[in-house]
Amino acid sequence: MLSYQPPLKDIEYVLGDLLDAPATLQNIPAFAEMDKELMMQVLEEAGRFASEVVAPLNAPGDEQGCRYQDGQVKTPDGFAQAYAQFCEAGWPALPCHPEYGGQGLPNTLNCILYEMLSASNHAWTMFPGLLHGAYSCLHQYGSEALKNQYLPKIASGEWLATMGLTESQAGSDLGLLRTRAVMQADGSARITGSKIFISGGEHDMTENIVHLVLARLPDAPAGSKGISLFLVPKYLPEGDGLGARNTVTCTGIEHKMGLHGSATTSLQFDDAIGYLVGEPNRGLAAMFVMMNSARLHVGMQGLGLAGASYASALAYAQERLQSRAAVRPPSRAGQAADPIVLHPPMQRLLMTQRAYVEGGRMLTYWAALLLDTAEHHPDAQAQAKAHGFLALVTPIIKSMMTDQGFAGASQALQVFGGHGYVRETGIEQYVRDARIAMIYEGTNEIQAVDLLLRKVLADNGKVLEDYLQGISDTAQAAQDGAFGACATTLASLINEVRDVSQAIGKAAAQHAALPHLVAPDYLRLLGHVSLAWFWLRAAQRSEALMSQDPELHAGKQNTARYYFDFVLPEVRQHLQVIGNAIAASEQANGNVFLPEILKQYD
Amino acid sequence: MLSYQPPLKDIEYVLGDLLDAPATLQNIPAFAEMDKELMMQVLEEAGRFASEVVAPLNAPGDEQGCRYQDGQVKTPDGFAQAYAQFCEAGWPALPCHPEYGGQGLPNTLNCILYEMLSASNHAWTMFPGLLHGAYSCLHQYGSEALKNQYLPKIASGEWLATMGLTESQAGSDLGLLRTRAVMQADGSARITGSKIFISGGEHDMTENIVHLVLARLPDAPAGSKGISLFLVPKYLPEGDGLGARNTVTCTGIEHKMGLHGSATTSLQFDDAIGYLVGEPNRGLAAMFVMMNSARLHVGMQGLGLAGASYASALAYAQERLQSRAAVRPPSRAGQAADPIVLHPPMQRLLMTQRAYVEGGRMLTYWAALLLDTAEHHPDAQAQAKAHGFLALVTPIIKSMMTDQGFAGASQALQVFGGHGYVRETGIEQYVRDARIAMIYEGTNEIQAVDLLLRKVLADNGKVLEDYLQGISDTAQAAQDGAFGACATTLASLINEVRDVSQAIGKAAAQHAALPHLVAPDYLRLLGHVSLAWFWLRAAQRSEALMSQDPELHAGKQNTARYYFDFVLPEVRQHLQVIGNAIAASEQANGNVFLPEILKQYD
Repeated sequence: MLSYQPPLKDIEYVLGDLLDAPATLQNIPAFAEMDKELMMQVLEEAGRFASEVVAPLNAPGDEQGCRYQDGQVKTPDGFAQAYAQFCEAGWPALPCHPEYGGQGLPNTLNCILYEMLSASNHAWTMFPGLLHGAYSCLHQYGSEALKNQYLPKIASGEWLATMGLTESQAGSDLGLLRTRAVMQADGSARITGSKIFISGGEHDMTENIVHLVLARLPDAPAGSKGISLFLVPKYLPEGDGLGARNTVTCTGIEHKMGLHGSATTSLQFDDAIGYLVGEPNRGLAAMFVMMNSARLHVGMQGLGLAGASYASALAYAQERLQSRAAVRPPSRAGQAADPIVLHPPMQRLLMTQRAYVEGGRMLTYWAALLLDTAEHHPDAQAQAKAHGFLALVTPIIKSMMTDQGFAGASQALQVFGGHGYVRETGIEQYVRDARIAMIYEGTNEIQAVDLLLRKVLADNGKVLEDYLQGISDTAQAAQDGAFGACATTLASLINEVRDVSQAIGKAAAQHAALPHLVAPDYLRLLGHVSLAWFWLRAAQRSEALMSQDPELHAGKQNTARYYFDFVLPEVRQHLQVIGNAIAASEQANGNVFLPEILKQYD
Repeated sequence: MLSYQPPLKDIEYVLGDLLDAPATLQNIPAFAEMDKELMMQVLEEAGRFASEVVAPLNAPGDEQGCRYQDGQVKTPDGFAQAYAQFCEAGWPALPCHPEYGGQGLPNTLNCILYEMLSASNHAWTMFPGLLHGAYSCLHQYGSEALKNQYLPKIASGEWLATMGLTESQAGSDLGLLRTRAVMQADGSARITGSKIFISGGEHDMTENIVHLVLARLPDAPAGSKGISLFLVPKYLPEGDGLGARNTVTCTGIEHKMGLHGSATTSLQFDDAIGYLVGEPNRGLAAMFVMMNSARLHVGMQGLGLAGASYASALAYAQERLQSRAAVRPPSRAGQAADPIVLHPPMQRLLMTQRAYVEGGRMLTYWAALLLDTAEHHPDAQAQAKAHGFLALVTPIIKSMMTDQGFAGASQALQVFGGHGYVRETGIEQYVRDARIAMIYEGTNEIQAVDLLLRKVLADNGKVLEDYLQGISDTAQAAQDGAFGACATTLASLINEVRDVSQAIGKAAAQHAALPHLVAPDYLRLLGHVSLAWFWLRAAQRSEALMSQDPELHAGKQNTARYYFDFVLPEVRQHLQVIGNAIAASEQANGNVFLPEILKQYD
């Protein structure tokens, strides 16, 4: 069974050396007292909880899974106890507001907490994973009465929460949902309908569950503009305790490729009592406001699993002796076989994982700081700028990190060879668990369309240009240093991104299908520009800090070079595809592929 | 549950229109009577067996799995009966020699049979999957006595066979294996040791199992030059029946990510009676002679799963209604949502799958014809040329097709969205089952090193140049046609491959690690050149044949364009990586990555 070592040294490097996170946070009055020591103290504690309490339940939880019977869900042995400990230690409250019993700490710390929890046990982490999203949504849109009644219970973790969006006919397209709500004279509502794929919709971890449910009012417009948000508790609160059982029933759980320990439930609402959250017919908008943080959260899951996979593969590659290396270090002379970490193709697999994981940590923590700035900075302009960048990088992070969560787990499995395909080794569970994150909270294709159409083309590339300008400044500053060649590569890539963005915009005006067709390439392109930016920043920073910790900084510079030489070239593929698609856009607009299939729609 | 439709129309197109396989086979006296009708008759029958008998057992077999108790393995319900039907219909004998009861049909048909079987039920197909490899090995190296005793039983399928290679410390590096063999005065041997990961090492399908086992004789040289091959039957034959139980015991089966219906066994040999096959200490050479066909076989598994995944995704994409398409065909006006096959990012996923599957079919069937030519052509020069090409494309096929078996299953799962992550849909099983093929029969990294170091650099690129010349001829011929732009792209790519191959050779002379480092990129590069060759051939051929079947040929040309515009650009990435690696080879030779880790070996 695999163990989990929290990557505290790398976390400290990114928060301290690379980003100087405390300086950013101290600009925000709510976080004036954040310093690196305090941040690392919290994270060390979080790492201890993840590795000691949650990680040991990962493989057994996968083996045992959740079990459904007569409307009840039993979680794997130990899950509920671990959750009780989680609440006792105050982790649910970490980023919540002090007036509702929260600790008022930065989202950045919460993101890193969830990176470590997901890395330790993705399935278990699904239960508290939606808690903060529900909290934020309710905090922003709920009435005072609802907030006072529910937020303290959610912040303490006493009640867990769900997001009731998906129905069998309405997944990516929530406009199709059919669950109905009827307002009552007393201001409450009655909800009727069926939801599927609701994570944590029923379980034995908390006495109550708070469902946030999308439904239609009788007079609502069709499509996505007629959806309202309701709070539907499993038990109706009564005084300080629980009253009647509401008419929401769990009708089953899914048997899935992975995440066996997470209850993916079907829920039936039969005239269940609920309460409107926010304005009627504005439910989707309320959901989307919290999407940035929810998608960043899913990105952290991908990063966590990619990191755990990489660490396991690296450890195995040092243990496993097989064949002689092409170039043997002196210490190995005369041995029958070498550790496979000495084989260049294994080094490629490991270094690629490392470049994504460590580079991903830089990018995602930077984004988490943007979230704190966007939510808490006193200056409106600083807030708006952070919000713009965050909106731009969120689909990139969600998509790139979850792609790598799956790809990195598979790369790690490849390092383990046949042993990795065997369940008891543990690595194949990462592959199975990681796969879903490319789908939920908006498929990675939807992220790509969101990035290109909504975040880039819709504002004529203004935020993009600000973003690229920042990267360009880094490249400029690095031009004459030891990483000058990388800086030149990045600077010329930025110009290619500018050109190609304009060319797509121009072609899109004529050919509406084109941006949808190239969106996945565009996302990977901009994702690599982002990672390249951080690897160049890291290499530069390490130039200055080398003497403080030569091993750490030499490792960063080595990985930066690897990233530029071996990983970044993926952009050549995407630029060529986009160029080809634009060149062919006259012919390729609309539904020109799969002619035998698509003729049925003519 | 997913059903399986054998892709007979595409098979017929590739064998007939594209490759004119009957003409190639008729040049070989053993296959003088092969015509397209006969070939398709056999394959229609095979398709019926695969879809009607084997496919329905796929999901239940995954659910139930093999069960181990006290040395016995029980296969999933229905597996043994399906195997009995398989033997009754004479399928095991298809490519075997008539003198041993075989049908003497081409390997090409056997390859396509196994493509369909793997697509229907990869786990079940693992049982007969090794039969033909064992047959060939024994046919080429066994004594007359062994051949007469065992080959008829193997050809009829009455006895199944295994390959006993891997030990816990000896996977990719068979030179490390420790199983011992001692020759006896009567010419037999006694085998002692433990093997792991032996597919079909124990089961309830046949009364006897023939193990081909690698072991060391007492006086054998160390490493891979001291390995001998032995035949070790589960029961010793006696007259026409079975005699004593041999001392080979199944000590357990693995619980794996996928292939639950296939018994992956650990075997213990305790002074078991065996018989030397071939020369002492030449066992590995005997194994490697059959590697081309075994690796081609694994490539067919990848192709089969990629094909089944694509077909399922394509069907689902036409059923599932979700969101409105960017460009709606007239027939969809006014509808709330469109079939997702109309969404461009879904078309990308589907077309990419299609380009690999249909292109892969062309490449692999061509290789299968090379195998028939190499084995049966009366002209030694034709044989040698076919053998050279086959040796070159085998690692490409094994690697590219199994990469796509996994990637294509994952792409199909993405088309299914959240529903694809649920077990009952069936698509996630393809992902789990396909993953192992990137590892066994030589990991895809070993394939890459085999291709670049053994197949290209070791003969100074002579076979490669012949191969490229053939591709160049196709490009030349297509220069002035409707696909002239594709032909130009391919012609210039061939020159880049020539240049980069020479540059790697030159750099490798100084820097031994370099070719190992870039081998995975080189394999994908040459793989895409190969697929591009066949897509250009297909496009050209369809130009001439368009009027015969406009739908079929328009579809081929459409996919050819897609392949060149959207898939082939992957080569830009690999060329850039290889270029970067060569440029950095002074610094990057030996173990320069992961400095903090590798310093322990200094």
